[in-house]
Amino acid sequence: MIQVDPDPQTHQENYKLMTGLVVPRPIAWVTTLSPDGKVNLAPFSAFTFCCHKPPMITITVGLHEYDRRGELKDTVVNILREREFVVNIANQTLLEALHASSAVYPADLSEVEALGLATCDSAMIRTPRLADAPAALECRLHSTIELGEAGDRIVIGRVQMFQVADHLFRNGKVDTRELNPIARLGGPNYAVLGEILTMPAARIVSSPTS
Amino acid sequence: MIQVDPDPQTHQENYKLMTGLVVPRPIAWVTTLSPDGKVNLAPFSAFTFCCHKPPMITITVGLHEYDRRGELKDTVVNILREREFVVNIANQTLLEALHASSAVYPADLSEVEALGLATCDSAMIRTPRLADAPAALECRLHSTIELGEAGDRIVIGRVQMFQVADHLFRNGKVDTRELNPIARLGGPNYAVLGEILTMPAARIVSSPTS
Repeated sequence: MIQVDPDPQTHQENYKLMTGLVVPRPIAWVTTLSPDGKVNLAPFSAFTFCCHKPPMITITVGLHEYDRRGELKDTVVNILREREFVVNIANQTLLEALHASSAVYPADLSEVEALGLATCDSAMIRTPRLADAPAALECRLHSTIELGEAGDRIVIGRVQMFQVADHLFRNGKVDTRELNPIARLGGPNYAVLGEILTMPAARIVSSPTS
Repeated sequence: MIQVDPDPQTHQENYKLMTGLVVPRPIAWVTTLSPDGKVNLAPFSAFTFCCHKPPMITITVGLHEYDRRGELKDTVVNILREREFVVNIANQTLLEALHASSAVYPADLSEVEALGLATCDSAMIRTPRLADAPAALECRLHSTIELGEAGDRIVIGRVQMFQVADHLFRNGKVDTRELNPIARLGGPNYAVLGEILTMPAARIVSSPTS
């Protein structure tokens, strides 16, 4: 094994290793409202669920690194002001638009308009969702947690409404193969799903002493 | 679109939807030390990174739902006492053992012993890592956050050492195809990586007004 002590490394080097090892990652394609009512859009792959009663999810958002270096990302600024956001779920068809929306845009430019993506009204919040995304989680801000020395923020959202395309929804479950999600890897790399392996239930093991 | 309001649903129904939509998820295969020095092992798929300076990761751990209902999971009890844990990264070869370790074991039974998995010393902490896992993140506990009404806890770990198998490590990066990670979907389903798609860098877009 190669051992890499993170302390003498640059944070870019550590980021490369973490994003290469914590894979594959689901992608939150987040719409938020800017102060002038435009729809901001950006993808975040430090994304997972964090509570099931009530349903909550987290995304982690860092500061800008290149252009606009050190600034809060528009997504966070908008979430902190509006207290709501939509996590849109992309499928493989949307990969190019998703990747293009990861570029650094000026705050006054709507990624949704620039990329020609249609939006539609959400059911429970004012922030629109992407019309072509096969699923969306309408969220209200629960809390944020700032971590470390570089301004990373965990954003916790409480799901107010699940939106799922009709053909994906079967008996209260999502058909993953039909969803055809895309995942984030390290570097400029994405992955589609390979083989799905279904395992037998394995729930309770008795202690030899009990 | 089908709209599902989470509020009138049971938390199991909401969990099914969330775990079916937030996909594919990376898996933290976590070793911890029990009070008598045995190695506890369990997989968690609410797993992501949350800070890059210094490197930190989160896992979310719920309470037991079936046997041992309402009890804290041994992983959390051990992390809170020992203030450390290892996130092992599994590959496809280890899927059966990984899935078997998700069963509910009595606290006095080591999943590692029961499944015949070899362990070896970590470099920076006392908790052993899995000898056959192709990578591992040795972590010290940073903090925990309890969320919601069902005892879910976000556990934040600070990475003290990255361990990466020699053949996966190239120029400070991880070869994802060689790693061959497995991901978690909804239900008893896992997925391997499909096609990897590499996108061109797309970083800065100028505003028409700037």
